[in-house]
Parts: sequence; C-alpha cells; structure tokens
Amino acid sequence: MSTESQPSSRVPAVARSGDRPRPTDQADVRRHNASLVLESVMVDGPLSRARVAARTGLTRATVGSIVDDLLGALLITEQGTRTPTGVGRPGTDLALNPGGGAGIGLEINVDGLAAVVVDLGGTVRHRVSRSGDQRGRATSAVLRSAAKLVDDAMAAAYDEGLSVRGVGVAVPGLVDLAEQVVRLAPNLGWTDVRVVERLRLYAVTAWPDSITLDNEANLAALGELWSGDHGGAESFVLVNGDVGVGAGVVLDGRLHRGSRGFSGELGHLTVAPDGPECRCGARGCLEQVAGLDWILRQAGVRDEPRIGEDAVAPLLARLTSGDGRAISAVREAGGSLGVGVAALVNLFDVDTVVLGGIFAPLFPWLDQPLSAVVRRRVLSARWAPLHITASRLGRDAAVIGAGQAPLQSLLADPLAPIAEAG
Amino acid sequence: MSTESQPSSRVPAVARSGDRPRPTDQADVRRHNASLVLESVMVDGPLSRARVAARTGLTRATVGSIVDDLLGALLITEQGTRTPTGVGRPGTDLALNPGGGAGIGLEINVDGLAAVVVDLGGTVRHRVSRSGDQRGRATSAVLRSAAKLVDDAMAAAYDEGLSVRGVGVAVPGLVDLAEQVVRLAPNLGWTDVRVVERLRLYAVTAWPDSITLDNEANLAALGELWSGDHGGAESFVLVNGDVGVGAGVVLDGRLHRGSRGFSGELGHLTVAPDGPECRCGARGCLEQVAGLDWILRQAGVRDEPRIGEDAVAPLLARLTSGDGRAISAVREAGGSLGVGVAALVNLFDVDTVVLGGIFAPLFPWLDQPLSAVVRRRVLSARWAPLHITASRLGRDAAVIGAGQAPLQSLLADPLAPIAEAG
Repeated sequence: MSTESQPSSRVPAVARSGDRPRPTDQADVRRHNASLVLESVMVDGPLSRARVAARTGLTRATVGSIVDDLLGALLITEQGTRTPTGVGRPGTDLALNPGGGAGIGLEINVDGLAAVVVDLGGTVRHRVSRSGDQRGRATSAVLRSAAKLVDDAMAAAYDEGLSVRGVGVAVPGLVDLAEQVVRLAPNLGWTDVRVVERLRLYAVTAWPDSITLDNEANLAALGELWSGDHGGAESFVLVNGDVGVGAGVVLDGRLHRGSRGFSGELGHLTVAPDGPECRCGARGCLEQVAGLDWILRQAGVRDEPRIGEDAVAPLLARLTSGDGRAISAVREAGGSLGVGVAALVNLFDVDTVVLGGIFAPLFPWLDQPLSAVVRRRVLSARWAPLHITASRLGRDAAVIGAGQAPLQSLLADPLAPIAEAG
Repeated sequence: MSTESQPSSRVPAVARSGDRPRPTDQADVRRHNASLVLESVMVDGPLSRARVAARTGLTRATVGSIVDDLLGALLITEQGTRTPTGVGRPGTDLALNPGGGAGIGLEINVDGLAAVVVDLGGTVRHRVSRSGDQRGRATSAVLRSAAKLVDDAMAAAYDEGLSVRGVGVAVPGLVDLAEQVVRLAPNLGWTDVRVVERLRLYAVTAWPDSITLDNEANLAALGELWSGDHGGAESFVLVNGDVGVGAGVVLDGRLHRGSRGFSGELGHLTVAPDGPECRCGARGCLEQVAGLDWILRQAGVRDEPRIGEDAVAPLLARLTSGDGRAISAVREAGGSLGVGVAALVNLFDVDTVVLGGIFAPLFPWLDQPLSAVVRRRVLSARWAPLHITASRLGRDAAVIGAGQAPLQSLLADPLAPIAEAG
C-alpha cells in the first residue's frame, strides 16, 4: 500500500457548456446562470462582479444574487478589497474556492485498486493505491479492499477540510448505468455485480449520497476532456490499455456512450479471427495480442504473468536498457494496436487518438509501429492527418476522471445542494 | 438502358427538427417557423390554418402570412372549402403539394449508374439506370454517361411539371464536402476527381444551382432516416454492400460524418491481416471477403467477375434454386460481414443495423451466419439485443437519399427561393 499526498496533476475542472441542460423554466434559467457565473470565475478569475456580468451577459443584479449563493455554498471566495477605479463602491475580486468541494475517484482494475481525492480546482490532493492481481480474489474481498481505500480517502479529505460531493467508481467492463451494475467484466470474471450497493455495505465512514459507477475508458476519456487539452468541439478517442483494452469516444466535446452505454469496446475488436481465445469467449480479440498480459509474456518479464501495479516498471526498465525481446514485444503490440486504431479512425473519423493507461508510458516504443500500420490501413490517411499522443494523465486518467465526475455534476448545477437544503 | 416511371417507394421527405438551425435573428425565426408550418402540413395534413397554429404554437397571423408564402412557392395547396363549423369565415384545408418540388439523385457506382426524380412527397417519379462495369472506362466517359442520366431525369421532371430544386450525387468513396471533390474512390480508381465541376461541363439541359456530392453509404443512411423507419432519436448503422462496403452512421437521429467527413469506412476494416490485397493498398479489408466481386467469384457466377446492374440477379436465381456453391459463398460472406458488424456494435453501441445495397436482397442467406458471429463477438450481446434488418429501399437507398438531399435543404428553409427572387 502506498500513500502520496501531492498537489501535482492540476486538472481544471471546467463545466462544459455543451453538457448543461438548455434552460426551459425559471429554475432551469437560474441553474444555467449559476453554472455560467461559476465557470466564468473558474476560467478567467479572479474577477469582479462587474466583469463577471460583462463576460456572462447577465445583469449585475442577477450576478450579485447568484454570487451570494455561490459564496454561501463555499464554491467561490472573495479576495481582498480592490482600489476603486470609478464610480460605485469598491469591489472585491471573486475566485474559485478549490477546497469548496472534492470528489473521490475509485478505480477497480485487474492489476490493482486506486483512489484519489480531487478538489474543485482539479488538484489531486490525495492518492492511495493497492497493487496486486485481483483475479485470484473473491469479489467480496476485492470490494472490501476498494471500500477501505474510499474510507481512507474520505478521512484524508476530512483532514484537509474538504467537503466530499460524491464518489465516482471506474471498472473495466460493461456498466449498466441505469441499474448501476457491472454487467460483465471479463478480465475480473465478474457478471452482474452490484458494485455500488456492495461497496456501501463495506463502508465504515459516512459516504456521500452520490456514488456513480462507469466504465474505466469512459472515465479516462472524460478525465482527458475535463483536463482541457481536448476542449471545445474537438473529437478524440482515448485508448486505455491495461490487461484489457478499452476506448472512450468523445465526439464534438461529448462522450459518446451509445444506445445502451456499451460503446468503445475496442479490446474485443477481432484482429486475428483464428487467434487466441479471449476471456469474453470469442477468438483473436485485440486485447489478447496488445494487452498487458500478452506484452509481459512476450517480453519475458514473467513466465507466469501475475501482475501488480508495478508490472510495468520492470518492463520499462528493460525497454530503457535496450532489451531486444522487450522492445520487439512492445513493437508487435503496437502493430496490433494500430489495426484497432485504424478501425476507430476508419469508422469514427476522429483526428486525435490519445493513448492512456499502460500505453502512455509505453508510447515511445509503441508510436512508430502503430503509426506505420495506421498510415497503411486508414483509407483517408493521405487527406486527414491523425494526431496520436500519450495521455498527459497517464495511468491515472480513469481514477482522476472518476474523481472529477461528481464535481462536474456540481459545476453543472452549483446551487443544487442549497435548493435541496432549503 | 432501362427506364421506368413508377409511383412506388413512397418516402415521406420530412425535415427533421434536429437538422434545423436554432433561430438567432428575425430572418432565422421566420425560416424556422416556415419549416415548422410546412412540416406540420406534411406530417399531419390536410389541416386548416387554425389547426396548424394549434400544432405549431404559432399565432394565427404568423401562420397565415407563412401559408401565403408557401402557397406562392407552390409547396402547399388549398383543398376545397370546408363546411364552417363555428364562428369565422369558412376555412380550406392545407395539403402538401407533392409536385411543388423535386430532387434528382444520381448514383455513380462501380457496377453501374442510376438517376431518380423524387418529388416532395417522397415518391420516386422517374428512375433511369445504365448497367455495366465502370472500372474499364475513362473517368470522363463515366461522367459523360452520368451527366446524360441527369439530363434525362431533368427532361422527365420537366415533362411532369416538376420544378427541380437540386441534384444530389452519390459516389463510392471519400468525399471532401467543402471542396466537393472525390478524394479517393479505390474501386473506381479515382483520386481527386472534381465530379460536380466536370458533370456540369457535360450537362446539356439547364441544371439547378444546387448540386451536392456525398458518400453513397452516407446518402443511403440518410435515405433510410428520411424514410421514417428510423425516425426520432434512434441510432442505427446502414451497411451498404456493392463491390465496396461502406457504412452510414446515424447517432441520435443525425448522420455522424466525423471530423473530416470520412466516417463509416467499414469496407476497409481489417478482418484478415494477411488476407488478399485491397485496392486501397492494405491487406485483408472486409470488402475483399464480403463485397460483390468476392461473392460472385466464390459462387462461381462468373469466372472473370465483370459486373453489371444485373450481376445480383443470376446469383439470386441460384440461391433460390438451392445451389450449394452460391449459398455457401453468401454464408461465408455473411460470417465476414458479421466481424464487421460486431466491430460497429462494439465501438458505436448502436441497437439497429440495416443492410442495404446488394446485402438487402441477399439478407435471407446472410442473416443466420452474420447473426451467429455477432452474438459471439459483441461483448454486450447478452444484455443488449441487436436488430439486424434489410433495408426497405434495398439497392436504391443511396440514389433515393441523393434525390432527397436537395429536398431536405428546401424543407429546412422553404422560403429561401422567394427571398432570393426578391
């Protein structure tokens, strides 16, 4: 178990206007305006009330009333007294209060568990992880350990005076969002596991009401999106690598979940129809020839792949030292991954592919063979250049996205807690 | 050359509200309202002015003024005089004037050319085609023949008193929409062909100003969407089969074109990494093992596949008579197609896949092997039933979609011609 508390990975948690509901009645209008005001302070602050009014197009009276409520909710703070520059009373500047709210992210993965506390300013205030292969463990043991990490994160947030607004949970599998059930996580061997209900059973501290479960690649893509690197109307796919391989698809600045929330199952794309059997029951799935197990086995890092959080470290050491077997294993995985990325680009026509999870640290070795395959197999390659990059958030994209998720709900409707309380 | 003039394939050309621009100024508001009024008459007509007002939420004065303009533009007609039922002057019912506008669709395909005249009511009023393989012909010869078909369609529309509002052109390849250039049509051997410019050169009759080029699978998907079978917020993928294989992706009732308009290149999905070389330069592309050439060759319908419009007819005859070789060829193609459909569903998570082009008549033989592969290779198959159906428009989906395209623009902005005229 390792615990770090660091202010690195600053991720501005900006609510995106595209995600906000369009105002249809008075309550909606106020919600929309409150979100606008908060976003304006977050993105451009510190700002005076007058400047917020100018930037949002709202009247000063509306801004004043919303600002009072946002101050009351501790989401923003007043900074000193500014020198009066014209008529009217001297103003104070408004700034985001990073400690005004925090989200906890939990990642349940095949090779380990992790939890983070992310504050409203996007800073990871606490990170705790538990390495080790989860495949040999009973579901209840995995969930008990996971609940313990969330309890620890709750305690850390409490110690720092952070009010936890919700918990996001990332899992490597098909999530039924409506029922909040993991329908299938082949690499964990899970079918129809009520993760949220069961986590609550094992909780020792008082968790917030809002706990939401989502697919890890979706949360990793949202983490990238919210990090601001892929803002605006951009479209990109985040390819998340671990034992499994998944994709989070962002089209025009919004996550494409699909009809039932099961989109982006890139790991089960057929790349070798007669290839090795996959835990999903099919043959020749991409993750069987580009996932962590395969890479470690081919690289000879372990004869019996039994993976933990540190599984990538010895591989990286060999790659850096120029070990031929390790390099050719990763290059071969890069070629297979290229077939998958080519499929994504041929079908979705995105112009940016971000490699996350284990693919982020392996990027220097994956890049060239992957790009070569993509150039050959993407029909539009000559006319539509593709940007393939490593995720800035690396292996933590999913758990950070999970921690951001409850904050995004808060930012989209910043005054909801007040309305409920009053 | 075969010419038929028939009132079959009734396709209601309903403008979808999602495709209309949101009103931002007075002219936009009027455009939006005109589109609302016309849609209301089309979908629910014949209707009185009062009922149109009630259904659209517009004032009677606004409806009256817009109706006058729509009558002037010949887009709607008045039907008789209704018996007065209450106070006020006796009203007349308003109905769509199917002959008020027509679109011409042109399809340039590998195995032939076709053109249709579609009226505002969605009826195909004229269809003309020219069978025969276009691969051996010079680009200019193909475009000359294509222009001739449009000239014939223009003449047919004129004879029927239809005012042609625009021409839509479907091509099997990557279309640069902004430049209106076919960047690449591998099966035609075309690169950077300025189709619209060159078609105009060969035109004999006076064509309308609006000529738009689009990918055939996109137009086939739009044809399906506009046919109303997949209306509302539905998502589906139309898989268009011919010598090439393409997909038109409709997400939440809108065509997903992708970042550069090159989405849906399903035919170049890798299904056998070491498979036969494709005309795109890669190996093992889906269309090499599920396209028309492969099926005809495997079925033994032709030793030297040289295909025409009728290429499917002898194949269908053999299938119907129970010819083992033909049946196993189509079943094998169905299995390969299943790998492609599984990729679409794993990545997009759509719940409906529509098979168009040659796959529509072959559906009875493709269905079972295709579905078996999909069940095995779609991760969410147990939780998310998939509907696989044959296109109602069959091989004509793309050319009908092409003919509908200019009418959709008209319906979205019905009074534009009047505004331009003065």
